[in-house]
Amino acid sequence: MADRGGNVTSGRPAFVAVDWGTSSFRGWLMTVDGTSLAETRGHEGMLHCATSGFAPVLADHLARLGAARELPVLICGMAGARQGWIEAPYLHTPTRLDALHSGARRVETAGDIRILPGIAQADAAAPDVMRGEETQLLGVTEPDFTGLVCIPGTHSKWIRIDAGSVTSFATYMTGELFSVIALHSILKHAVVADAPFGATGSAFRDGLQRAYRAPTRLTSSLFGLRAGQLLGFEQHTDGAAHLSGLLIGAELADAVMQYGREHPVRLIGAGTLGQLYATALADIGFKATLIDAEQASRRGLVKAAIHLWGTQF
Amino acid sequence: MADRGGNVTSGRPAFVAVDWGTSSFRGWLMTVDGTSLAETRGHEGMLHCATSGFAPVLADHLARLGAARELPVLICGMAGARQGWIEAPYLHTPTRLDALHSGARRVETAGDIRILPGIAQADAAAPDVMRGEETQLLGVTEPDFTGLVCIPGTHSKWIRIDAGSVTSFATYMTGELFSVIALHSILKHAVVADAPFGATGSAFRDGLQRAYRAPTRLTSSLFGLRAGQLLGFEQHTDGAAHLSGLLIGAELADAVMQYGREHPVRLIGAGTLGQLYATALADIGFKATLIDAEQASRRGLVKAAIHLWGTQF
Repeated sequence: MADRGGNVTSGRPAFVAVDWGTSSFRGWLMTVDGTSLAETRGHEGMLHCATSGFAPVLADHLARLGAARELPVLICGMAGARQGWIEAPYLHTPTRLDALHSGARRVETAGDIRILPGIAQADAAAPDVMRGEETQLLGVTEPDFTGLVCIPGTHSKWIRIDAGSVTSFATYMTGELFSVIALHSILKHAVVADAPFGATGSAFRDGLQRAYRAPTRLTSSLFGLRAGQLLGFEQHTDGAAHLSGLLIGAELADAVMQYGREHPVRLIGAGTLGQLYATALADIGFKATLIDAEQASRRGLVKAAIHLWGTQF
Repeated sequence: MADRGGNVTSGRPAFVAVDWGTSSFRGWLMTVDGTSLAETRGHEGMLHCATSGFAPVLADHLARLGAARELPVLICGMAGARQGWIEAPYLHTPTRLDALHSGARRVETAGDIRILPGIAQADAAAPDVMRGEETQLLGVTEPDFTGLVCIPGTHSKWIRIDAGSVTSFATYMTGELFSVIALHSILKHAVVADAPFGATGSAFRDGLQRAYRAPTRLTSSLFGLRAGQLLGFEQHTDGAAHLSGLLIGAELADAVMQYGREHPVRLIGAGTLGQLYATALADIGFKATLIDAEQASRRGLVKAAIHLWGTQF
C-alpha cells in the first residue's frame, strides 16, 4: 500500500480518515490506495468537544482539507467512547482485526460518517480497554499475523495477536506514571523537569536493567533514585533518564513474563519515545520492528474503509 | 519501661524528647523512666523552619512544655538533615541501634541540644536513607533482636535487624504513590477523593492479593482498576481501597522476596494505616506485632538519652 506516495497516485479523494483522541484531532484526505492528499491537525480532542460539540469541529477540519461534502468519513479513537460523539461499543477479545469495521457506528447526520469501535478485554481478572490502538493494530498487521505489538505512550499497550485475532492485551501506565512522579512526588527533586523523556545513554539503560532484573522492587527502586543522588552515586541530570528506564524496565519485565520473547514485535512509535523503546526492546532481547504511529493509524483507517465501502467509493 | 505511667513516676522532668519531621513537630517532657509528663505538637516541620529558623520554634515549644532552661533536649528526624538545623551525618549499615547516640550532633547554642543521626545504606545497587525511623527502631527492639520491622507511611520502610544491628533496609513509595496516582493520574476518575486510605473490606483484600500474586504487573493492574470500573466489574466507591490494596500488595510481595516470611515482624503504625497493614501482613502470612508509632519514637529517644546522659540527668 502506498503512503504519501507523491505523484504515483490513483488520484482522487476517496474518503477522510480521522484519528480523534482524548486531546488531539488528526485528519487526512485519502485516496483509495492509501495516499494522503492533505492533512489537518488540531487540539480539539474529545475533552474539548465534550463542551464545543463534535460536529462543528469535524466540519471545520473537513473545510480545511477541502473535502467534498459527499465524501465518507471514517473515525477512530475516543470520539467513539461513551463520553464521546456517539458510542461505538467495544468489540470483545478474542476478535479479528479485519472485523473491526463490523463494529463501526454511523453518526445520525447528513453524509456518511462512521466511528470504529475499541476493543475490551472483559476478563474480571485482567480487565482492559483500548480505543484508537485497535486501528493501528489493523494498520501494522497482515491478516495472518501472529506475534506481539507494543504501543508505548501515556498508557503503553502490549497486544498478543494470533493469526489476525487480538487474543489478549495489557495496558501499563508507564508514561503517565513518569509524569505524575516527576511532577508531583518527592522525585521532583531528583528529576530535571525539562529533561527529555529519558535518553539512550547509560542512566536510562542502567535504570532499565535494574527494573528488569528486579521488577517486584519498582516502588522501592523509585525511592532509590532519590537516595542514590543524596548519597552521591548518581547525577541529578540523569534523574529523568533513570526514571524512564525504571518504568520501562518494569513494563518489559512483565511483558516478557506474559508473552515471552520469542515472538516478533511490531513497535508502533514515533520520535524520542519510539527510539527509547527500540533501544529498550533490543537490550532486553526482543526482535522488534519500529513503525511510525501516524502511518499505522492511517493504514488501519484505509483498510477498514475498504472493508466498509469496498474499493469503489 | 513505663510510658504515660500516671502517678507511679520517679517524677521530675529529666529531658525533652523531640520528633522533628518534614512537616510536623512533636515534643514531650520526659522523666528518666520514660514517662511523658507533657506533650506539645505543631506543624512547624523542617520545611517550615527552613525559612523561620529552628531555634525560635524549639524555644516556643519548650515554653509550652514548661521545660526548665537547663533540661537537655534530644531530637530525632529531619532537623538533622543537610537542609535541617544542623546536619547529623548518617550512620552506615550495618550499624548497631544502641550506637545511634554516638552519631548525635550538638547544636552550638546555650543548653544541651542534640540531634540523632539517620541511617544510610550506601550501596550503589540499593541506595537508601532514613531519618527518624532509626529512633523508632531503637524504641521497639531489644539489644539482641533479630527480625523485621515494617514502618508504613508516605515512604514505607522495611528493615532487617540482626542481633541488634540494622543490616539492610528498603523504602517503598507506597503512600506517596497512592496520593499522586489518586490525585493526578487518570485514576482520579476511579478513586473517590475523600474515601479513607483503603479499608479492610474485600476491595482492599482483592487488590492486595492481585498485586501480591503478580507483583511485576503493578503498573498494569493500576490501569486495570480503571478498566474494571468501565467494564462493570468494580464499584467506583471501592476504588480507593482497591488502589491501596494493589500498592501494599506489591510492597509486601517484594518484602517477602527480600526477607522471607519466617521472621517476626514489629509493625510500627497508628490509626487506619496501622490496621490496614496489620490486616495485610496477616493475610500474606507474616507474624506481626503492632506497636504505636509515637510510642516507638518516644521510647527510642529515651533509650538514646540514657545512653548519652546516663540515668542521672
